[in-house]
Amino acid sequence: MPAGRLPGRKAATAAPEAPPIRLGYIDYLNCLPVYFGIEQGAVELDVTVQKGPPSALNRAFREGRLDVTPVSSIEYARHAADCVIIPGLSISADGRVASILLFHRRPLEELDGRPVALTASSATSVVLTRIILELRYGVRPAYRVAPPDLDAMLAEHDAALLIGDDALLAAQAYPEIPHVDLGAEWKAFTGHPMVYALWVARRELAEADPAALRRVVRVFHASQEYAWDRRPEMVAEAVARRGLPPDVVDDYFDLIRHEFGPRYRRGLVAFYEYARRLGELDAVPPLRVWGEE
Amino acid sequence: MPAGRLPGRKAATAAPEAPPIRLGYIDYLNCLPVYFGIEQGAVELDVTVQKGPPSALNRAFREGRLDVTPVSSIEYARHAADCVIIPGLSISADGRVASILLFHRRPLEELDGRPVALTASSATSVVLTRIILELRYGVRPAYRVAPPDLDAMLAEHDAALLIGDDALLAAQAYPEIPHVDLGAEWKAFTGHPMVYALWVARRELAEADPAALRRVVRVFHASQEYAWDRRPEMVAEAVARRGLPPDVVDDYFDLIRHEFGPRYRRGLVAFYEYARRLGELDAVPPLRVWGEE
Repeated sequence: MPAGRLPGRKAATAAPEAPPIRLGYIDYLNCLPVYFGIEQGAVELDVTVQKGPPSALNRAFREGRLDVTPVSSIEYARHAADCVIIPGLSISADGRVASILLFHRRPLEELDGRPVALTASSATSVVLTRIILELRYGVRPAYRVAPPDLDAMLAEHDAALLIGDDALLAAQAYPEIPHVDLGAEWKAFTGHPMVYALWVARRELAEADPAALRRVVRVFHASQEYAWDRRPEMVAEAVARRGLPPDVVDDYFDLIRHEFGPRYRRGLVAFYEYARRLGELDAVPPLRVWGEE
Repeated sequence: MPAGRLPGRKAATAAPEAPPIRLGYIDYLNCLPVYFGIEQGAVELDVTVQKGPPSALNRAFREGRLDVTPVSSIEYARHAADCVIIPGLSISADGRVASILLFHRRPLEELDGRPVALTASSATSVVLTRIILELRYGVRPAYRVAPPDLDAMLAEHDAALLIGDDALLAAQAYPEIPHVDLGAEWKAFTGHPMVYALWVARRELAEADPAALRRVVRVFHASQEYAWDRRPEMVAEAVARRGLPPDVVDDYFDLIRHEFGPRYRRGLVAFYEYARRLGELDAVPPLRVWGEE
């Protein structure tokens, strides 16, 4: 997707010749409360925004074409040395998340050796699925990657993982197919909130231009304040984009948390510990939060 | 209550001659997740801690005998010029809070002109009660202050406000008396989380010794990480102190949030706007968060 220069006045703290900050933007509903003010041009800033799926943003960030972007939790763990975490910002849920759903044709306890369809779009939710099935329910299915089409997935598999807007839509469209909410399963299993994604900055930017990073933190704050101050408009915008019922969107905006305080950090470290136990990570990475090193 | 020097090594960043930071500590369950690591001596720090009810801490802070302390949201609004907000820390709930309960003998819609007993211990919950009764239910009761004894309160009043541990205990002891949860009422009325308290630092300390304040922020972070890493022990400690059932305490630690991100800030500003409408505040104060001015 092409990058676009957003409207908005130049931040007063920016040097006149400072290049714009290049922000990534995952075009999922769960990011809307973070970007709504930016999108609406209501925040003083000098940034460009590149929208795309997580995999495209991850690649752009690794290749130095983005300065600040959301990355999935597992992606951070695998590249922690190259980046710093933006403080106070995540995509999390403290239990039910509504958008990471495992639909199943037979009870989870009976999935040992059975085919389970995963999505290619999110490594973090795949690891979460493994944690829940293998460590909570004690089964080891045969995983396969499949496109996010529930009918097709369940025609050939006993369970199917859907995430993001696909999951929200499928829960509406297939109320008769049982599913478990993997955020709720995680909470019941570990007691922790689950952190699905973080925002990171390139380490060299953070070191070379801390003022730019402070500007980014302020922009994200202001954009979120704008969003929560206009929640009905934000819900209406989300409804228009996705065709979901307003009450589903409204509930979702309550479930998704964008905080990253100590409790969420502990949840993230717990996730990394389980991922390591399953061989998905070599080690639990340190959480390098900008301003705290 | 006497101040006590806590164990724990001196923080490496503190100058050898730096005086200890004087922290206030409201001895309610909702503060335990913030102070558990400090209490257990598990955090590197050089602080003294003074425990007490909010009113005593407010006074000690105003008289310069505390450097950093929790204050109720209304207290902050009334003294915003003298202090700065510690970033990323509050006592909040996004809906049901379980510990701000209005017990009632008749429906809320019928309380116009009727006697309602308030507690003297918290100005913020008194203002919240007024917002819910007067602006949501459209009634104007006759308020009186009474000691927190539910039987005695309801002998002479049609409704009674209890807060904090008193409320948690009364909900257990009097399941037959109907009550509304004012956090849930606030959320249903406004859509916002409700921020009950903040942590503040004396402005002169923040300006004269920013390194000390950074140390305090780190100590609160580390103390919370310690707490959430040992949630079962923390629940057991709370059960031992209050005699509440473990599942009540565990549920309460899920409801109480200690975040203070943009969404919570908007909730706090909304609360101030309603308080002003009721004449409880002259103006909505700016949120002066340390490091953001």
